[in-house]
Amino acid sequence: MADKAQIQEAIKTQGEVVRKLKAEKASKEQIDEEVAKLLELKVQLGGDEGRHQFTLKTAKGTRDYNPKQMAIREKVFNTIISCFKRHGAENIDTPVFELKETLTGKYGEDSKLIYDLKDQGGELLSLRYDLTVPFARYLAMNKVTNIKRYHIAKVYRRDNPAMTRGRYREFYQCDFDIAGQYDPMIPDAECLKIVHEILSELELGDFRIKVNDRRILDGMFAVCGVPDDKFRTICSTVDKLDKMSWEDVRSEMVKEKGLSEEAADQIGQYVSLQGGMDLAERLLQDAKMSQSKQACAGLTDMKQLFSYLQLFQVTDKVVFDLSLARGLDYYTGVIYEAILTQTGPVPVAAAQNGAGEKAEEGVSVGSVAGGGRYDGLVGMFDPKGRKVPCVGVSIGIERVFSIMEQKAEASAEKVRTTETQVMVASAQKNLLEERLRLTAELWNAGIKAEVMYKKNPKLLSQLQHCEDSGIPLVAILGEQELKDGVVKLRTVHSREEIDVSRAKLVEEIKRRTSDV
Amino acid sequence: MADKAQIQEAIKTQGEVVRKLKAEKASKEQIDEEVAKLLELKVQLGGDEGRHQFTLKTAKGTRDYNPKQMAIREKVFNTIISCFKRHGAENIDTPVFELKETLTGKYGEDSKLIYDLKDQGGELLSLRYDLTVPFARYLAMNKVTNIKRYHIAKVYRRDNPAMTRGRYREFYQCDFDIAGQYDPMIPDAECLKIVHEILSELELGDFRIKVNDRRILDGMFAVCGVPDDKFRTICSTVDKLDKMSWEDVRSEMVKEKGLSEEAADQIGQYVSLQGGMDLAERLLQDAKMSQSKQACAGLTDMKQLFSYLQLFQVTDKVVFDLSLARGLDYYTGVIYEAILTQTGPVPVAAAQNGAGEKAEEGVSVGSVAGGGRYDGLVGMFDPKGRKVPCVGVSIGIERVFSIMEQKAEASAEKVRTTETQVMVASAQKNLLEERLRLTAELWNAGIKAEVMYKKNPKLLSQLQHCEDSGIPLVAILGEQELKDGVVKLRTVHSREEIDVSRAKLVEEIKRRTSDV
Repeated sequence: MADKAQIQEAIKTQGEVVRKLKAEKASKEQIDEEVAKLLELKVQLGGDEGRHQFTLKTAKGTRDYNPKQMAIREKVFNTIISCFKRHGAENIDTPVFELKETLTGKYGEDSKLIYDLKDQGGELLSLRYDLTVPFARYLAMNKVTNIKRYHIAKVYRRDNPAMTRGRYREFYQCDFDIAGQYDPMIPDAECLKIVHEILSELELGDFRIKVNDRRILDGMFAVCGVPDDKFRTICSTVDKLDKMSWEDVRSEMVKEKGLSEEAADQIGQYVSLQGGMDLAERLLQDAKMSQSKQACAGLTDMKQLFSYLQLFQVTDKVVFDLSLARGLDYYTGVIYEAILTQTGPVPVAAAQNGAGEKAEEGVSVGSVAGGGRYDGLVGMFDPKGRKVPCVGVSIGIERVFSIMEQKAEASAEKVRTTETQVMVASAQKNLLEERLRLTAELWNAGIKAEVMYKKNPKLLSQLQHCEDSGIPLVAILGEQELKDGVVKLRTVHSREEIDVSRAKLVEEIKRRTSDV
Repeated sequence: MADKAQIQEAIKTQGEVVRKLKAEKASKEQIDEEVAKLLELKVQLGGDEGRHQFTLKTAKGTRDYNPKQMAIREKVFNTIISCFKRHGAENIDTPVFELKETLTGKYGEDSKLIYDLKDQGGELLSLRYDLTVPFARYLAMNKVTNIKRYHIAKVYRRDNPAMTRGRYREFYQCDFDIAGQYDPMIPDAECLKIVHEILSELELGDFRIKVNDRRILDGMFAVCGVPDDKFRTICSTVDKLDKMSWEDVRSEMVKEKGLSEEAADQIGQYVSLQGGMDLAERLLQDAKMSQSKQACAGLTDMKQLFSYLQLFQVTDKVVFDLSLARGLDYYTGVIYEAILTQTGPVPVAAAQNGAGEKAEEGVSVGSVAGGGRYDGLVGMFDPKGRKVPCVGVSIGIERVFSIMEQKAEASAEKVRTTETQVMVASAQKNLLEERLRLTAELWNAGIKAEVMYKKNPKLLSQLQHCEDSGIPLVAILGEQELKDGVVKLRTVHSREEIDVSRAKLVEEIKRRTSDV
């Protein structure tokens, strides 16, 4: 525990950081993150400095979504769900926590990132780490051997959060998986088609989908002289090639993992290769690679995959890349990962973060989707070990949200957070009851309507609320209108007003808002 | 810990229970619950009996949703969200866990039901218990003083699950709240209007919305001679009147909570009262009740509330009921609870559960919505104690799901779990590539299409899949059709087939499925 003077010093320094960010008009997210650190320090200090007894914050690595963020989220989800439904997927849901043992032994080195629940008597539970393992548990438990399903839900990882870059401890995954025994590579190709459709429709800029196969990787390790028991650990090192240079990866293999220099160099030659169907064909002829049955099986399937991708017209974005490894233990065949290749507006924090994180022209801004084939996972849950072959893809939606938010900020168009069509207002006093009566009439007719919760609101403040929240129409009541059985219908943006009879009001509002 | 013989005996008994339920064709849910108990026993026993090393189940009190349940859930959510949007609500989201201290001291006696996370270093966290406290934390943290928002998410309670009656440890809440300083009872009335709209639209049968006010309850306790420090505990006992007889409630007050018999009997006279605006007027004249300023304030507001409810045309279902108490500590004004009054199809388990739970004609099947005013909660989070008045309602959706599922089971109409419009099929062999090409064309045109992942599927099995999953159209390819540049479009239910040119296919599918 640091002593009081140290903490006070830290508070001072952190206070400076916050002030500076505010002066620089840094992003709200970034300021919030630093303010949270400041509050944590104040709480450590306790006593007078931490005035209130509790910390007013969300848990580390998590965040609230405000209405604007939710409006964007809804739009993104609608795009994704529409795509999943277009491909005939059903929807399932599983609990946020699983028995601890259900997650045990599925995630390799990442298992330490699992959140456990406190033992309060009863079962030992953990928060789900992804949606794939619960899906496999679901299939085994319900003896489902055939399903095409999507599942959109939050997952939990005690990772180091980097919230300004869209990395959280609580985040959404949007998973689409096909389970069942089918002819090779057809469902696999559909998963890639789905990634292609979603990333195109979200208009996130250019992207690439890297493809590889665990069998090709394992075959490659074998022919390069990697000992059997080092396959998995060497595989996780290769997985770092998107963040580290080859030199650093090589050094980790040799110095930390004890691989021979010769084997490492042979791997180095393969993992630099990228291509399409042609590369698969070439490697099938490769003197060394062709010695591995596993590699040949993977390469033959890769050729088949590309032939289907051609029919699906998505080969423009798909690259067979031998450096793609993916960390998770459960993959058994094809693996893939989609990255955005356009350097978008880079968040300040990332740019400040020094060399390793510096955003350069043309450098990828990170993975937005990934997945692969996992034919053994369901069998791990089945009491008799019955296998159900599966292939799936997970859309990493948080980074997509970040980009969409930045785009919304940059755009002139305001994001609406409600869908209200009309505000029921009055220019005169003592018309609350009439306003409420009309509002209820509109609600009952299915019109989205708001009314101010004041007895005598000013007309100006009622109109101002419409301006602020983008409500297109105002239905204004006055003594005269009530006598005449009409309502003054005002179009907010043009300020035009016309009298509409009460009987025709609903129809008129529907007509005017259907083409907005 | 029970000894081995005891557990073996318990396994035998539990095995009988399961066999009996299966023989009686009890609901899947009920059987699953008993099977889970059996599995737990087997695990306790360990060794050979618990054959596989892990338990294949979801955590106690939780469940998966299968595609059929999800289809129903989607429909219910759409109804609810449409209503919230019709009333101009924005949407927010908060993390599934909060700092433990955020939840501390908000739930009174129920705090013991909160799930804590294990201390893995870092902050102490708990799963959210409801959406109201996180909402108040959100308002204080973001200094929001005015918002109308909805929030639909799962909450967690370590309660005794009764899954066959729709009571779970993980369950959805659908919350709508209005925060802000407004003229009295207008937002409160809108909350009741919303409950009325949602329960009507969901067609769950007849319902009642009971209304009361914490100030009326407290005033009543005061004039009946309940000591100040016993208000909350007596209030929780009164809250049990929907499950217990007055005699039992009276006995708990007197024997367990040490209330005088005289005070209890006076309370008894009040809590039997039900009515509408007239009752509020009568109590304002009541010699005893009118002595309490608090009660008078509550009763005056109750009159006002009913006048707005008349304008909203919902008084047919709303009852001012002095026995309504509601358990949560944070309510400060109006409280309400909606119950279904129709005895629907009663789940077997409930009927078997003995006297206390026996379903009788006209007895309520339980609360489906509840809420009230909580003007002090946000102030508990604000460092300077600034208050933000709030009123809201929470729809308890799990029971609604149960009822909708039962209705779906009973109905002849099949629940579709996908929205697929057309199946791309072939009658002849070796047309996989042509099928994939056409399917991609349809996807690209926004048509929801499926294709079998087999090289040479039988036409019959392709048609069978359409029958099973309710796909209305089949696009059949054959050598002749390919030569002629047409597709045979088959209507599944009528078995009619016509040739449509490739160029017109998308248009024709859209035309035929728009009116389905």
